[in-house]
Amino acid sequence: MPLFDKPLPDLREYRPERHEPADFDRFWQETLAKASTDPLDPSFVPYDSGLSTVDVWDVRFTGFGGHRIAGWFLAPRDPAGPLPTVVHFLGYQGGRNWPIDWLVYPAAGYAVLVMDTRGQGTETADPDPGANPQVPGFLTRGLVDRDTYYYRRVFTDAVRAVDAARSHPIADPARIVVAGGSQGGGITQAVAGLRTDLAAALIDVPFLTHFRRAVEMVGETGYGEIAGYLARRRVPPEEVFGVLDYFDGVNFAARATAPARYSVALMDAVCPPSTVFAAYNHYLGPAEIDVWPFNGHEGGAQVQRMRHLRWLADTL
Amino acid sequence: MPLFDKPLPDLREYRPERHEPADFDRFWQETLAKASTDPLDPSFVPYDSGLSTVDVWDVRFTGFGGHRIAGWFLAPRDPAGPLPTVVHFLGYQGGRNWPIDWLVYPAAGYAVLVMDTRGQGTETADPDPGANPQVPGFLTRGLVDRDTYYYRRVFTDAVRAVDAARSHPIADPARIVVAGGSQGGGITQAVAGLRTDLAAALIDVPFLTHFRRAVEMVGETGYGEIAGYLARRRVPPEEVFGVLDYFDGVNFAARATAPARYSVALMDAVCPPSTVFAAYNHYLGPAEIDVWPFNGHEGGAQVQRMRHLRWLADTL
Amino acid sequence: MPLFDKPLPDLREYRPERHEPADFDRFWQETLAKASTDPLDPSFVPYDSGLSTVDVWDVRFTGFGGHRIAGWFLAPRDPAGPLPTVVHFLGYQGGRNWPIDWLVYPAAGYAVLVMDTRGQGTETADPDPGANPQVPGFLTRGLVDRDTYYYRRVFTDAVRAVDAARSHPIADPARIVVAGGSQGGGITQAVAGLRTDLAAALIDVPFLTHFRRAVEMVGETGYGEIAGYLARRRVPPEEVFGVLDYFDGVNFAARATAPARYSVALMDAVCPPSTVFAAYNHYLGPAEIDVWPFNGHEGGAQVQRMRHLRWLADTL
Amino acid sequence: MPLFDKPLPDLREYRPERHEPADFDRFWQETLAKASTDPLDPSFVPYDSGLSTVDVWDVRFTGFGGHRIAGWFLAPRDPAGPLPTVVHFLGYQGGRNWPIDWLVYPAAGYAVLVMDTRGQGTETADPDPGANPQVPGFLTRGLVDRDTYYYRRVFTDAVRAVDAARSHPIADPARIVVAGGSQGGGITQAVAGLRTDLAAALIDVPFLTHFRRAVEMVGETGYGEIAGYLARRRVPPEEVFGVLDYFDGVNFAARATAPARYSVALMDAVCPPSTVFAAYNHYLGPAEIDVWPFNGHEGGAQVQRMRHLRWLADTL
Amino acid sequence: MPLFDKPLPDLREYRPERHEPADFDRFWQETLAKASTDPLDPSFVPYDSGLSTVDVWDVRFTGFGGHRIAGWFLAPRDPAGPLPTVVHFLGYQGGRNWPIDWLVYPAAGYAVLVMDTRGQGTETADPDPGANPQVPGFLTRGLVDRDTYYYRRVFTDAVRAVDAARSHPIADPARIVVAGGSQGGGITQAVAGLRTDLAAALIDVPFLTHFRRAVEMVGETGYGEIAGYLARRRVPPEEVFGVLDYFDGVNFAARATAPARYSVALMDAVCPPSTVFAAYNHYLGPAEIDVWPFNGHEGGAQVQRMRHLRWLADTL
Amino acid sequence: MPLFDKPLPDLREYRPERHEPADFDRFWQETLAKASTDPLDPSFVPYDSGLSTVDVWDVRFTGFGGHRIAGWFLAPRDPAGPLPTVVHFLGYQGGRNWPIDWLVYPAAGYAVLVMDTRGQGTETADPDPGANPQVPGFLTRGLVDRDTYYYRRVFTDAVRAVDAARSHPIADPARIVVAGGSQGGGITQAVAGLRTDLAAALIDVPFLTHFRRAVEMVGETGYGEIAGYLARRRVPPEEVFGVLDYFDGVNFAARATAPARYSVALMDAVCPPSTVFAAYNHYLGPAEIDVWPFNGHEGGAQVQRMRHLRWLADTL
Repeated sequence: MPLFDKPLPDLREYRPERHEPADFDRFWQETLAKASTDPLDPSFVPYDSGLSTVDVWDVRFTGFGGHRIAGWFLAPRDPAGPLPTVVHFLGYQGGRNWPIDWLVYPAAGYAVLVMDTRGQGTETADPDPGANPQVPGFLTRGLVDRDTYYYRRVFTDAVRAVDAARSHPIADPARIVVAGGSQGGGITQAVAGLRTDLAAALIDVPFLTHFRRAVEMVGETGYGEIAGYLARRRVPPEEVFGVLDYFDGVNFAARATAPARYSVALMDAVCPPSTVFAAYNHYLGPAEIDVWPFNGHEGGAQVQRMRHLRWLADTL
Repeated sequence: MPLFDKPLPDLREYRPERHEPADFDRFWQETLAKASTDPLDPSFVPYDSGLSTVDVWDVRFTGFGGHRIAGWFLAPRDPAGPLPTVVHFLGYQGGRNWPIDWLVYPAAGYAVLVMDTRGQGTETADPDPGANPQVPGFLTRGLVDRDTYYYRRVFTDAVRAVDAARSHPIADPARIVVAGGSQGGGITQAVAGLRTDLAAALIDVPFLTHFRRAVEMVGETGYGEIAGYLARRRVPPEEVFGVLDYFDGVNFAARATAPARYSVALMDAVCPPSTVFAAYNHYLGPAEIDVWPFNGHEGGAQVQRMRHLRWLADTL
Repeated sequence: MPLFDKPLPDLREYRPERHEPADFDRFWQETLAKASTDPLDPSFVPYDSGLSTVDVWDVRFTGFGGHRIAGWFLAPRDPAGPLPTVVHFLGYQGGRNWPIDWLVYPAAGYAVLVMDTRGQGTETADPDPGANPQVPGFLTRGLVDRDTYYYRRVFTDAVRAVDAARSHPIADPARIVVAGGSQGGGITQAVAGLRTDLAAALIDVPFLTHFRRAVEMVGETGYGEIAGYLARRRVPPEEVFGVLDYFDGVNFAARATAPARYSVALMDAVCPPSTVFAAYNHYLGPAEIDVWPFNGHEGGAQVQRMRHLRWLADTL
Repeated sequence: MPLFDKPLPDLREYRPERHEPADFDRFWQETLAKASTDPLDPSFVPYDSGLSTVDVWDVRFTGFGGHRIAGWFLAPRDPAGPLPTVVHFLGYQGGRNWPIDWLVYPAAGYAVLVMDTRGQGTETADPDPGANPQVPGFLTRGLVDRDTYYYRRVFTDAVRAVDAARSHPIADPARIVVAGGSQGGGITQAVAGLRTDLAAALIDVPFLTHFRRAVEMVGETGYGEIAGYLARRRVPPEEVFGVLDYFDGVNFAARATAPARYSVALMDAVCPPSTVFAAYNHYLGPAEIDVWPFNGHEGGAQVQRMRHLRWLADTL
Repeated sequence: MPLFDKPLPDLREYRPERHEPADFDRFWQETLAKASTDPLDPSFVPYDSGLSTVDVWDVRFTGFGGHRIAGWFLAPRDPAGPLPTVVHFLGYQGGRNWPIDWLVYPAAGYAVLVMDTRGQGTETADPDPGANPQVPGFLTRGLVDRDTYYYRRVFTDAVRAVDAARSHPIADPARIVVAGGSQGGGITQAVAGLRTDLAAALIDVPFLTHFRRAVEMVGETGYGEIAGYLARRRVPPEEVFGVLDYFDGVNFAARATAPARYSVALMDAVCPPSTVFAAYNHYLGPAEIDVWPFNGHEGGAQVQRMRHLRWLADTL
Repeated sequence: MPLFDKPLPDLREYRPERHEPADFDRFWQETLAKASTDPLDPSFVPYDSGLSTVDVWDVRFTGFGGHRIAGWFLAPRDPAGPLPTVVHFLGYQGGRNWPIDWLVYPAAGYAVLVMDTRGQGTETADPDPGANPQVPGFLTRGLVDRDTYYYRRVFTDAVRAVDAARSHPIADPARIVVAGGSQGGGITQAVAGLRTDLAAALIDVPFLTHFRRAVEMVGETGYGEIAGYLARRRVPPEEVFGVLDYFDGVNFAARATAPARYSVALMDAVCPPSTVFAAYNHYLGPAEIDVWPFNGHEGGAQVQRMRHLRWLADTL
């Protein structure tokens, strides 16, 4: 993939006007308030996956709409006291998979709660009362109204996943970290913008960010679903973008206060670098960014994760 | 596409054992009986699409689960009396589109009701209480149980679409024809197997037929969603095929009595010819088949449709 | 497909210098004058395709070089009087196909003549005395001289197709409309620039327009044939572009006076939007344009056609 | 490319029934007799391409229908006497290109005449009175009748190319060799079947051979054009194959008497090995074959050509 | 990917003749004996990757030719006594990557040594004195002689990796397990056939097995490099296969005695199931196999690994 | 391929700053001086490839590191005196192939030495003491240090290939020409910059030139290997580009004094035109350039070669 977006010096200065609905905050306050009327009812069932130095629980908690959301909770066996705890959100079309996929944090002395993204993966349903016809994928599910849009449900699940993590006795509630890459990075941004009690946010190559530019730059996967939706329905684009504004990572970043570590890749054609810098440059709290000049959407991969471990050790 | 399936003489004799659940008939009786407790409540709202020799109605009726199903109803303006009426079902991922897409039957003197396939297209929702995580597409939606499987809802909608068509004063209830290609051909087969009041069935390159063989032959589109589902979930295949047996076109064909006209294409890698002949050779009523030796999934296309017009003129 | 051409505000102003040969008008006058020495000899043979509310004729008329050109003529049965009549030109590599493909205009109360594009489709030959070796396709057929170029023959056929339509007793000669998309849009532009007796022109995502820019922007299909020709022959490009100037839609648009309705799609990589706006912005008569911001070469598709029906109702 | 055709031992025995029209010989006699009424009128114009040890002539001669066919004639400068001369036919979609492409034979002491394939390349026109609409390519040009089929013209050109070569004073008429690969191999087979005065034939991975099987085995390029033609026109296949029988390499091989050297590649998906062996096993004269077990359509390439030089040295 | 190999019942019986060189055992005895003259000189340098419950060492040891081979050694911190230890070999074109990639075994209470595959990854060089020109990849590196073939070096490294693992004080030498998938499965098979002191072998979808059939079945990746080599060099195939026989997993399996757990996927087009069963059915020691009917080369993935943990708990 | 680089007028002026290491000249002096301590030891063994007007020798000479480099030497038989001689370098992943591939120069009265590129082709090994893990291909072989980089060896071989050519009695040492396209063009540039005794240089679409820009413009083949290397290793890019600066065609062009003929293609996505003009515009000696506006990486192909013959006739 050749370079295709703005040059790096321009990216570092790229801070576009945000399209923020006037009632953005009220929409999310009401959404979360309504969700909080359902008891969280977290459940942690021990799970035997053959491990002996890590404890594993099969998690369920109540997310948006009273729906039960699956996850895993892992922690090193016999910890000395409450542990800093990472709430990890997943990339697009992935699922929580298996406990053996999530061993990095326990091996580093953290607990981790991995939240299933509803409808994706294999475990967590997304009961969708609207059930509008969609472009295959999730970006256009419910995209007829801010109230029915898929990511309203997901972001609410994610905000409550933090509560679920805090409810586990091993978790130290003062040291909750949110983290994720791609879609997981987009969810992390949203949670960081909607909660004020987080110790840190790890945001890698975030998706769901600066939709208006992304939809014009990305033809195929991910953002391309929205162009496909507009192409087929031929509704006024503002009807669609006006909904997406309530879910745009740029608007969440502008509210987030937890210390953040971003990463971006300059040859990333899935989440173009200008869309990442748009959010990073609006981030309200302290933030730094790792730039991968010759990588695509894989970004910093495992090297990034090792940097995260070091940075968390310094930050928490 | 080269030839890849059995030679034509073998296809003509190919009549595999059917996998038929013992309670197949009871399952469908109960399904349709339950649906019939919701009033059909057909609605025909005149629609102005700029035509002057064809009347168009925007249709809604109640299908499975009390859900409203969209459609179009078209008829030549000022007919001399009740008209033979075609109920047309759609190919995969299509939708009812626009009235100007469905002018052939009115131009030939028939009324036509085009039924939206729920969740596909742009108009008809598929409220899905189970909402299991799925392979993108529809073949694995609800594929955890015969009761929640997507095509239980679709086939029920389709059976009731015939009632909706019969309820229109222009339709001659003694001359209702069901028709469709690919997914629409699979739906047509199902309706032909579930109703006894049909005057004819037009079944082109049907999908949803002989699943057990099809899933092993087709890698990518359509049937490939099921292999993808099995690949990811790793459940015992019989759990999945045991559900699909209730929806297999081969089992519906073995019950259908209306005169039928099939078509099949020998280079069709989407709905392989052996799967079509499997149903055709089990068809209970009188049936004939057009074989297109050098075509793919497009089959006979418009030439097939003109043959249909002639055949209907002879048959009805 | 991401956006790849100029931004919309620039497109709306894009009105490039035209490369117009000094004897452009004379070339076409002489071409058409010569063709008119062959009698048009239109033939309308009733054709039974199983329709009952639409009359169909299998058409032949004499186009360029005395060659017989095929077409279909359709009209609603038993019209009250002479009908407004659309002469419809076809997209690249298509053919007149079957009468049941052309039912929209008769259903809306118009007659329609669909002209085969010589050499394309299956019916109409293109006797080509030069028969120069070509890049597969039609864009380089005869591209050694303006006199032998393929589109000289096609555009002449098209001008005469209007005469053929006018010769049918059902057609109202005061209300002849020319229409087409892609290659058909390019042909429509040419006819609109060469005739003064047209009631309207419907020009969708036109091909054969602003060749000099298009050949540098489009790598593969369509315009790419010309680059392929230049790549292999290595003649001075001006030898080729100097011929194409006689056939460029921009030059026809600058002469056309009939009221026109254009359409353009901003993600159209086959006929890039700047090439369409180049012609639209040079159009001499009254014109308006529909812009499809998230569509590719399909443009407005059926929605565009319904807009056409409404616009024609207002315009004629 | 994996192995996909019959195993080698079966290929060595594969000698299918031939479909030979009763008047095959008369058709070709009459075709060639008619062509011979046009004077050959060979022209050899010295051509300066900057070479100093090879003489080059730009060739024209009259082929089928009085059309002038281009070629190159090369010979080592200052030969001691008349030279054995190769008439070389070209692969599909190629052209005679430039003299510097054809230096192997002169460097080995032979003269060579390279014949342009009409319509292909850049120099030789194919005036086509029928000019039927075609699938892009040449395999369906004129494929409505044996008299109008493209390869009737090409094979006639090729038979006369031998006469043209013999007419050059440098050529030794007793030592004329015909040669070519792929399409050129198919043409070579035809000439070998139609002339009795040839000293040898070099036939590599021949195309245009055993059409009935090839069309069912090859989806895309080459033979796939015929399936595409049948798919679109939907004529009875026998109408098409009945024409092709007059041009099938299997039928020419069964008549050819010159000593022949074939080659075949077992992973050749363009000209499948069974189609090559079908001709080889029917070859009437003495023949041997080189088998390339792990090659595709490139066959033996330059190694094959060096074998040819050695074999010709032994054979002539 | 559709099914393309033999049916499962036939696969279960597929036990082809092996091509075993007469001096197979002597070749490997001499190879390993020669290697053992270089001191193993294992080095375990503690490595800080930010983990706190797992100890990590950066490993080097001397493999074939005195070359230093890199690896990681991981073990749970503060083990109660010597641990069963897995020696893990890697898939094609992978490398040892980072310690955080290899946490499953330590989390389950095992130590693990991950061996870099020389030349692949980023750390371990493959000094190659022959340095013959190759098809890109590793399958044809040194494929001119059994002594210079790449996998002679790799398999020797792998045999000595077991010694390196045994040399670590945490490792229990009576409980050494070898494991790997794809190329790693092929290496595991080789080590299992060359050592008699192993407690178990985990062999997933093994590569480098039944070359003679694989090369004819697989066109592109992996095995296709060998066909590419034969296609270009045109040496007698037996020269190549005669070398490969010394490295064929089928011949190692016939010597291996450690209890083995295989896995195979029926839609695996990279390592076709018949090649896996060929080895499995020749395996000398006790063996069982997991069959994944709808998976490709990913085989059982994480589910397979969890089965491994349970099976090892039972077996060791 | 559409135009994608700068417009031609800008290209003609494009003369970027060069990144030239301070010790560039010393590095190459020392490299060549060291190589010259190995005797060249050229060997010319007559080779019978069946030609009769051209003499062929199988060549070996000592290149970098004492390694023997293969080649062919061809000359017209019985020349009148010493001949001007071309030393020809090869494109990427090619090899010297067979004598019959290199007949153009002998046919034009020149001798030619064709040098194998070590490791590429089938004959010449590249003993690589470093043997670092690489991206498949050659661009990252040894790319850890200027001393181990692959092209240090290749360029040294090439400089000495000129000496080998001069050592043949047929060669006129005052008329040695260096020539090549793509990789061969890059090698030619290097030799032209490192020797002062050349009569001319023919440089077509050169590779290995202006690396810093090329790596950002080319995603896949060729230059893309370097981006792939940076993506996986994540070393500071300057570590890599700092090595490449010693091998950049731009720096060699700035030293070269022989009369040069360049060519460039404006749609060349493998060696983008701006990278070619960067070198051309820095060329120190007299130079001219052929621009192919509608060609890709094939550039001027055979037409370019004929221009070369004419230009050489004028220049030498």
